[in-house]
Amino acid sequence: MEELNILNLLIILASAWLGGSAAKKLGYPAILGELIIGIVLGPAMLGLLETSEMINVLAEVGIILLMVYIGMEINFRDLGKASWPGLLAAIGGFIVPFVLGYYTIIYFGGTQMAAIFVAIAVAVTSLATKSRILVDLKLLNTRIAYVLMAGALISDTLALVIFAGIISYVDAGSIDTLGLAWVAGKAILFFVFTALAGIYLLPLLGRFLMESKINSRTLHFTLILIIVLGFSELAEVAGLHSILGAFMAGLFIRDGVFNRQISKDINNIFHDISIGFLAPIFFVSAGFNVTLEVFQTDLAMLIVVTLMAMVGKIFGTALFYLPSGYGWREGIAVGTGMNGRGAVEIIIAGIGLQMGIINSEIFSILVFMAIFTTLTVPLLLTWTTKWLKSRNELVHQESRNGYIILGANPLGLYMAKKLQDKNEVILIDANREMVAEAKKQGFNSMYGNILKEETFEDANAIEKGTFIGLTGNSEINYLAAQLADDAFYIPNKIVLVSPSETGTDVNMLDKIKATSLFANKTELEPWALKISNGDFKEHTLTIKEEISTRQWVKEHKGDKDSILPFFIVNTEGVIRPFHYNDTITEGEKVIYLE
Amino acid sequence: MEELNILNLLIILASAWLGGSAAKKLGYPAILGELIIGIVLGPAMLGLLETSEMINVLAEVGIILLMVYIGMEINFRDLGKASWPGLLAAIGGFIVPFVLGYYTIIYFGGTQMAAIFVAIAVAVTSLATKSRILVDLKLLNTRIAYVLMAGALISDTLALVIFAGIISYVDAGSIDTLGLAWVAGKAILFFVFTALAGIYLLPLLGRFLMESKINSRTLHFTLILIIVLGFSELAEVAGLHSILGAFMAGLFIRDGVFNRQISKDINNIFHDISIGFLAPIFFVSAGFNVTLEVFQTDLAMLIVVTLMAMVGKIFGTALFYLPSGYGWREGIAVGTGMNGRGAVEIIIAGIGLQMGIINSEIFSILVFMAIFTTLTVPLLLTWTTKWLKSRNELVHQESRNGYIILGANPLGLYMAKKLQDKNEVILIDANREMVAEAKKQGFNSMYGNILKEETFEDANAIEKGTFIGLTGNSEINYLAAQLADDAFYIPNKIVLVSPSETGTDVNMLDKIKATSLFANKTELEPWALKISNGDFKEHTLTIKEEISTRQWVKEHKGDKDSILPFFIVNTEGVIRPFHYNDTITEGEKVIYLE
Repeated sequence: MEELNILNLLIILASAWLGGSAAKKLGYPAILGELIIGIVLGPAMLGLLETSEMINVLAEVGIILLMVYIGMEINFRDLGKASWPGLLAAIGGFIVPFVLGYYTIIYFGGTQMAAIFVAIAVAVTSLATKSRILVDLKLLNTRIAYVLMAGALISDTLALVIFAGIISYVDAGSIDTLGLAWVAGKAILFFVFTALAGIYLLPLLGRFLMESKINSRTLHFTLILIIVLGFSELAEVAGLHSILGAFMAGLFIRDGVFNRQISKDINNIFHDISIGFLAPIFFVSAGFNVTLEVFQTDLAMLIVVTLMAMVGKIFGTALFYLPSGYGWREGIAVGTGMNGRGAVEIIIAGIGLQMGIINSEIFSILVFMAIFTTLTVPLLLTWTTKWLKSRNELVHQESRNGYIILGANPLGLYMAKKLQDKNEVILIDANREMVAEAKKQGFNSMYGNILKEETFEDANAIEKGTFIGLTGNSEINYLAAQLADDAFYIPNKIVLVSPSETGTDVNMLDKIKATSLFANKTELEPWALKISNGDFKEHTLTIKEEISTRQWVKEHKGDKDSILPFFIVNTEGVIRPFHYNDTITEGEKVIYLE
Repeated sequence: MEELNILNLLIILASAWLGGSAAKKLGYPAILGELIIGIVLGPAMLGLLETSEMINVLAEVGIILLMVYIGMEINFRDLGKASWPGLLAAIGGFIVPFVLGYYTIIYFGGTQMAAIFVAIAVAVTSLATKSRILVDLKLLNTRIAYVLMAGALISDTLALVIFAGIISYVDAGSIDTLGLAWVAGKAILFFVFTALAGIYLLPLLGRFLMESKINSRTLHFTLILIIVLGFSELAEVAGLHSILGAFMAGLFIRDGVFNRQISKDINNIFHDISIGFLAPIFFVSAGFNVTLEVFQTDLAMLIVVTLMAMVGKIFGTALFYLPSGYGWREGIAVGTGMNGRGAVEIIIAGIGLQMGIINSEIFSILVFMAIFTTLTVPLLLTWTTKWLKSRNELVHQESRNGYIILGANPLGLYMAKKLQDKNEVILIDANREMVAEAKKQGFNSMYGNILKEETFEDANAIEKGTFIGLTGNSEINYLAAQLADDAFYIPNKIVLVSPSETGTDVNMLDKIKATSLFANKTELEPWALKISNGDFKEHTLTIKEEISTRQWVKEHKGDKDSILPFFIVNTEGVIRPFHYNDTITEGEKVIYLE
């Protein structure tokens, strides 16, 4: 046992955290800050930090766990739903920069292998763009966001497949036709075997564990690590790289394979160990391998590679996006959103360096390319979406669509009636008569106990975007929203909270990321009665000045309970339930009952 | 970057899992199986596995994380409550084997330093005995278990403090008085500084994060890792070992410092990474350093060390336990329970080997000593507790005592009346009048919304052993039990479930480790009415043959709802609520209403 160099690890982790936090503060993904801090503190500039055996081991374990996590985050269903435009964007945004990147390196006299590596690196799209930037720019519910995410997932998958081909080829060395067939055969066998194991064996294991009532999270974690290492070793045996095994394992360890609660916990653990601990070590130490001399010796190549990466990605995406019929402007916007490179690119570049396929100059160029392109994303995406907005071409689309409304009471029906014009709505109630009555009135409704997972499954909850708890029992509303959050990841949960002093408290809603319906504690019964008797008036009010729903309630409701704000309609006519934590912008309309 | 040896890691992790699982199946702690599998598959026997740089790095990071987790598990309040007998057992069980171990090594011609190392190793008590064996032998609620846990915690803390002294001394080399003072000063400064930082700075950070509404689990995890590494580096600077820093950090990262939910999640992550991933790698690779030759070359020393360890621990504990007044037999039982050595011993032995203070023979002897002593625990403890039981001297005691009863309705009062003879009982209700009425009748009761953490805090929930949810609203009962489990770790949660077809379902109770009151769905109102009118008869039935509560309900209740099994009274007159998942043994009495 050698002495661990704690100080080195401490400084690297602390500076990774500082760099990452600073980047996030500025609206960039953490990886950007981590790479830059590695370059600044590492041998390239200040020389305060350097790599060590320990750092390498931790970084490499970090990559494996990160690849598992990236795999876990890719949902086949999402890929399937990506449909035409997402696929077009992904392919265009991949092929065009790939070709440009390849010929750039050949032009500068690089080897064919190095050219292919750079081509992959240039073609990749960062998954990190996914969350933060879209949230910051309030783009989450737009068609662009939807296409972007699908595009990033597809291009990453594509990149890894091509990478697999290259790696097995390199590994084989000089090669004849028979040898090439053997190499290709092994790689294909690997994918076929892991896919079959993932599709058939893993669910079998999961079912066995569930049936044996084995629900230790730690045991699941250990077993999954063993599976990950097993897949990684298989990848090595097949002449591929271990990260491909980890990625394949991650792809198949997901919803429905293991107990839902445990799956979520394990997903969190992989997230925290990789993104909160080991992966930053890798990204900082990737910065250690960068040399600043490229700015003197290879400035031309650096500029051309970066330009090709950006031009190829943005215009390639826009070009292939044309057949979607959504217009070239949206194509450009999607291209700018996909322009960032991130984890997968740096990992692939690192492997290329390690295997001697690319030299340290090209590695440095790829790191700088990642930094520069990532820097452009918020800027360019802000411009392009403003541009679309100003032309009224920013199309809204939910990635998870449709409503589950709990409670087929008059309020539930009233809610469903307005929403079901543009959304799939399903009403659930535990009262058979109310369900029958709702059905008679033409509503899509079903009977069930909402606190059972089966009921959510029957309602196809995993594809729904919003859960609305509208029974008079706040606790049932809350528990149902909790289940919606825990097991079905429904992004929006809106629950009715009764004005009782005890029981469910508005502060509890934060825990499950839910908000209160009508932005206020509300008694169900009086309103249900009014609505079923037709004893109410519906008003529509156009908002002149941006206001929070909370403030709106304060100003309009006053002390009396005579007003119930029900919906907000935006300028495009899209309707949403009135709830806490929402902002009504200028020109939107509030529909309220009196 | 070097290529990771995935295969090696895979085999080590898989065999650690196999060894650990096998040991657990047999009722032993996992570490036993991990050590044995390391010896069997490692150089000592089959030679299939060997250590590598990667394995060493991962093992050492594993130890650091494990020490954090061990620190997290030690609760100052528990130590404080350990009181007289626990302290006596801990000290006796530490000092006597320490002295015996020390002189054994001196006798066999070892160095003074080696002797002290062995003495510490022999004196340590395994924390791993804590959970499984006590559960298997159904000892969790006995005074023995209580003393055992406190004893293990105290002896581990003691061992680490002495270890700190030794390490700083060794590190200092040849030494004069001034040097010794400097060494001791640095070590003391380290403990003072980390304790102050832990007591004052960490809660400040926690409050800052809470007030800034920063509730990212990953961010907390990263920050805590940085703190851990910082403390570890401080320990190194003070001439101590990094594990002491990690341990100190773990001690202070606990309840109340950070957001409760996040603390729990972080605790889980440390548990899973260390116990589910990295620590087993350390224990297996500890087996690699063992040589079987000691059975030939040093058999006498092996036997004497093991004997001294066992005799010293068991009789040392029993001897010092005498002043407690609980009798020498209970002392022997406690001693047999504390006889196992585990993680801390192997870690300390490993460091001794690494620093060259003990040689590979003594290291091997210590590993075998750990294995042999651990093997004895279930056997000896089974005997001694049977012996106590047969003499009716097995005293029950809850480590967390007292009841929180939600619902000051007639059933709640009836429940409280019987329980409050021997337990602290607090009634909580959201109805002020009912609380006032209960108070008038002499019950300890308070007003509050049970779904708020403050209410639980006011009821001093962290020290309570059982939560009973007895309102007519099953969902409130359930949510309150969930909070009791999540934030206050109340071990027993018993809730009334209404016979409604919808809403809270008995299957949901598993998730929060709760059971249903009366072992059956029960309507509150009719019984509340009967009790308040005095319209019922109380029957007592002595059970002839062991039966589960569920079966009892089936046999006695039949279709009619005319019977309500309320309590079980054991042969010592201890009363407990009748609930699902319980077994009524021969001679116990069921109190039921009709």
